Amino acid sequence: MSLKYLTQDEATNIDLELFNEYKFSVDQLMELAGLSCATAIAKTYSREQLAGKDILVCCGPGNNGGDGLVCARHLKLFGYQPMVYYPRRTENTLYQNLTLQCTAMEIPLTEQIPQDVSKVGLIVDAIFGFSFRPPIREQFIPIINLMKNNETIPIASVDVPSGWDVEKGEPETGGIKPELLISLTAPKICAKKFEGKYHYLGGRFVPPGLQRKYNLNLPDYPGVECCMLIK
Amino acid sequence: MSLKYLTQDEATNIDLELFNEYKFSVDQLMELAGLSCATAIAKTYSREQLAGKDILVCCGPGNNGGDGLVCARHLKLFGYQPMVYYPRRTENTLYQNLTLQCTAMEIPLTEQIPQDVSKVGLIVDAIFGFSFRPPIREQFIPIINLMKNNETIPIASVDVPSGWDVEKGEPETGGIKPELLISLTAPKICAKKFEGKYHYLGGRFVPPGLQRKYNLNLPDYPGVECCMLIK
Repeated sequence: MSLKYLTQDEATNIDLELFNEYKFSVDQLMELAGLSCATAIAKTYSREQLAGKDILVCCGPGNNGGDGLVCARHLKLFGYQPMVYYPRRTENTLYQNLTLQCTAMEIPLTEQIPQDVSKVGLIVDAIFGFSFRPPIREQFIPIINLMKNNETIPIASVDVPSGWDVEKGEPETGGIKPELLISLTAPKICAKKFEGKYHYLGGRFVPPGLQRKYNLNLPDYPGVECCMLIK
Repeated sequence: MSLKYLTQDEATNIDLELFNEYKFSVDQLMELAGLSCATAIAKTYSREQLAGKDILVCCGPGNNGGDGLVCARHLKLFGYQPMVYYPRRTENTLYQNLTLQCTAMEIPLTEQIPQDVSKVGLIVDAIFGFSFRPPIREQFIPIINLMKNNETIPIASVDVPSGWDVEKGEPETGGIKPELLISLTAPKICAKKFEGKYHYLGGRFVPPGLQRKYNLNLPDYPGVECCMLIK
């Protein structure tokens, strides 16, 4: 039995069940998801490798952006230098609190796209997640273009490479090409088209009943790890 | 500069600041705290060592019990066989949800003290935490006595060995003697009296400003670890 790759509808339904049936709070699962992302990033890019460099964490308006905010906080706790680009803050209390926690962790936050990325050693793409449907809203085109046109800074995408169709993958006109993809809960169909170097699975919290219902066939995470390399 | 051991008031104030100033939710920090506990337990007692044995997770009425419920869920995800003794459920939505999540993880829950502990390989003590003040309420005397009088099953205490004075330590009349203590955020003064084999620190989420304000002098956690052995 091989690992299941989820359609957009399946991903949405699993998310809804986690919250409505299993009564997880967004706070809980976002904390575990963001921690998985930070851990996968730290396993892939050592502190030595990124010494003196910033990690630019780009956060979108929804839950993918929330995962990014949590990821940035844990990266700081791991000894990295994250900075957060968060252009579209919401009124949602959780996101306001996650933003405040980043500030309290002494992480620089900006609503402007950094003009100078010469000190950026890694970009974390937490703009859009599994609920994205094209087209890309105008506000986010510049940051997507920055990631797309950059040829030197590696990109780590949270759950779905932003701008990709969740099922069809990279747009025909060309999209971002992450080096690292961290699939959360289970990979989405677009991950089959991922050609980067490292594919991690994170979000070790799916109850067995839900795994069976959707035939997820998740691999066994080793030991106490919160993420695992699947490619 | 050595690691700070907290008074009861300091522990209470740090907790209040985390929630009121830093705007963490109980859900967030309890998830990280419970994960730390499960990880410390898994690092101390291997699955092979506990094969065929249950881990009896004893949960009290407050946040220490909530940490226990989260810990039980992660232990199950790590491949252990936890069972939860939770005699005094509250109306609080968070605890009701944490309880439901344990059930969804197919963890047996009971309100009765198990009569037969021959299959129990480890007891997790999550009855009382840093806000405990003697005397022990009558309802919890039997479970404390079960832990106190047991001479063969190792005990892992969450934050404070239950029944111990948070500052003075083990009661003069004798208390439980955990083999493993997992201090959360920072150790409490009673931990200086801990004579068990393994002392872990967990709860890797304290913002630097709060660390400075209380002179915590926390050690550097290694890599991406969420807990570390300090003795």
